[in-house]
Amino acid sequence: MNTNTLCSAQPRDIAVYTPAFLRPIDYTCRSLTHSTSTFLDPTNARELRNAFGRFLTGVTIITCKEADGTPRGFTANSFTSVSLDPPLLLVCIGKTAESRPVFETSTHFAVNILCETQKDLSGLFASKDTDKFDRTSWRDGPQNSPLINDVVAWFECSRHQVVDAGDHIILIGRVCGFEHQELHPLGYGHGGYFSPCIEQAVVNASDTHSNLVVGAIVERNGEVLLVPDDSGDGLRLPHSGEGGHSGSLRNLRQQLSDLGLRVALGFLFTVEEDSDTGAQAIYYRGEANEASPSRGEFYALAALPWDKITDANEKRMLERYFAELARQRFNVYFSDGRQGHMDPVDH
Amino acid sequence: MNTNTLCSAQPRDIAVYTPAFLRPIDYTCRSLTHSTSTFLDPTNARELRNAFGRFLTGVTIITCKEADGTPRGFTANSFTSVSLDPPLLLVCIGKTAESRPVFETSTHFAVNILCETQKDLSGLFASKDTDKFDRTSWRDGPQNSPLINDVVAWFECSRHQVVDAGDHIILIGRVCGFEHQELHPLGYGHGGYFSPCIEQAVVNASDTHSNLVVGAIVERNGEVLLVPDDSGDGLRLPHSGEGGHSGSLRNLRQQLSDLGLRVALGFLFTVEEDSDTGAQAIYYRGEANEASPSRGEFYALAALPWDKITDANEKRMLERYFAELARQRFNVYFSDGRQGHMDPVDH
Repeated sequence: MNTNTLCSAQPRDIAVYTPAFLRPIDYTCRSLTHSTSTFLDPTNARELRNAFGRFLTGVTIITCKEADGTPRGFTANSFTSVSLDPPLLLVCIGKTAESRPVFETSTHFAVNILCETQKDLSGLFASKDTDKFDRTSWRDGPQNSPLINDVVAWFECSRHQVVDAGDHIILIGRVCGFEHQELHPLGYGHGGYFSPCIEQAVVNASDTHSNLVVGAIVERNGEVLLVPDDSGDGLRLPHSGEGGHSGSLRNLRQQLSDLGLRVALGFLFTVEEDSDTGAQAIYYRGEANEASPSRGEFYALAALPWDKITDANEKRMLERYFAELARQRFNVYFSDGRQGHMDPVDH
Repeated sequence: MNTNTLCSAQPRDIAVYTPAFLRPIDYTCRSLTHSTSTFLDPTNARELRNAFGRFLTGVTIITCKEADGTPRGFTANSFTSVSLDPPLLLVCIGKTAESRPVFETSTHFAVNILCETQKDLSGLFASKDTDKFDRTSWRDGPQNSPLINDVVAWFECSRHQVVDAGDHIILIGRVCGFEHQELHPLGYGHGGYFSPCIEQAVVNASDTHSNLVVGAIVERNGEVLLVPDDSGDGLRLPHSGEGGHSGSLRNLRQQLSDLGLRVALGFLFTVEEDSDTGAQAIYYRGEANEASPSRGEFYALAALPWDKITDANEKRMLERYFAELARQRFNVYFSDGRQGHMDPVDH
């Protein structure tokens, strides 16, 4: 039965998605295939986590009230809908998360699906901060669970069943009320957030601006590429566009290729105004293959020469990047944060 | 405790994401908020399904072998990773799916996470086709489960536990082998597929082309908007760019606004070459509010005046759109297909 006939779906799909102008870009998107393919033992927890992280998800905040009325909440992407009749959903909670006993015993809880402008809320509820709810706009649901305002959807549930599953519990809830609205959801995958709608809008808008920097945070095994700046004394992220010349994705790609690297550019990391130059800046996240760059070097956080990084905007981006790497790159193990699995992956 | 203080995360996030050129676009992304907000009873299955569908997911194909060696598989997005130690994952299967008994009793099964060029495979394994595996490139895994080639990741599992959950079973597997590679995953959410990497590449490339059509399939309650074509006798999808004039997203938005509609443009629906004109075409999916358009009309599939649709490319797109609406807009209830929940949502 294992015929291995040519996959008929693939060619059909390619016919739809590759007009002439897309081909070189498509190549870049699909690079690196050979170099990082792995066939691994499931006890390799780090590789397993990376592999689990290939599954795209939305981002939720799970909330409930303690017996004394204190609101509790944590960020999770291990959510799935289960059944329509009766209406059931589930979420996984780490057994070592401090809030686990509260959620395991609470009669009700709520699932809040975040929209693409709520990335910071995701970080807040994945953190150890103790004033999460003070810093968040929320209200009580019909069954008294905390509902985050302006989310894509919320579901308030009664506890239906708790299933023991390895180092997690599976909390199954029966939906007793819900609401949804036409907002675009925040996405998470492959170690980073993405915002389908914002990303489309940004890149569409980018052709109308003449003072644009297009750069990339290029990572490899937790290390980030820095290249010499124009003076040769400092370091910068690889980028295109400066001094009145507008950058472009094409130029950025050329530059990375000139360094002898193959880089898969993924989601946008940031879109902002450079407070020093007034230029507008779009930075992508990228992953490099194992080749040695002809200029520049990859640096781990501990070895990062902060004083040599000449662009203040890039410095802030790197701070945020490594903070997210330490705090938020958890596809599976987002948790309460107070005592959850917040241990850094890569350093 | 319900302080409802201003959400601190929101302003911080906006500071990052809204340089001057983004503001009008951001507005469009977040429109329709007020008009479709609903507060609903969980026994309203259709609304609940729509709300569940707000959660972004990847797309998987779940596979196993029957006792006689026949490969079985179905498309699912109700997957989540569960535990690292021991390594566990889960997937939900509808009780009425024909393949449920096979998966419920099989000693092993595999989860294949699709990449963004495998949209057609997703459709194939959500269909009733009986030759799915003949039309797919696959191989046997270490434990004999069918592994789809060129996926982002696969996990082969032994059956760990089966949990009864409403109209579904939760199949928990213990990972016994896996592999992943640097491909971009296919996404699914809000009733449609999306491809974060391809979409970024497309819109970046769009500024280098002078003969570009930018259009939209604008839906409302299962009906699609058509407007009079230039001759006034035929109908077309709203679009910008034609006859040597290049379209743009901005012009498309202006046109929709001129019709008196507020439209939230979401994921790309298609990127292709118009076989008649040679123009390159990018069409978005959009959702309209309840206002009456000043020109044109919304049509359900059954009422669609196919003979009046003058653009062959748009006709094909509409055929595909309604086919996907009927067959694939299932956020929760993708299933085996042979006897699964393939009943259309909207007509």
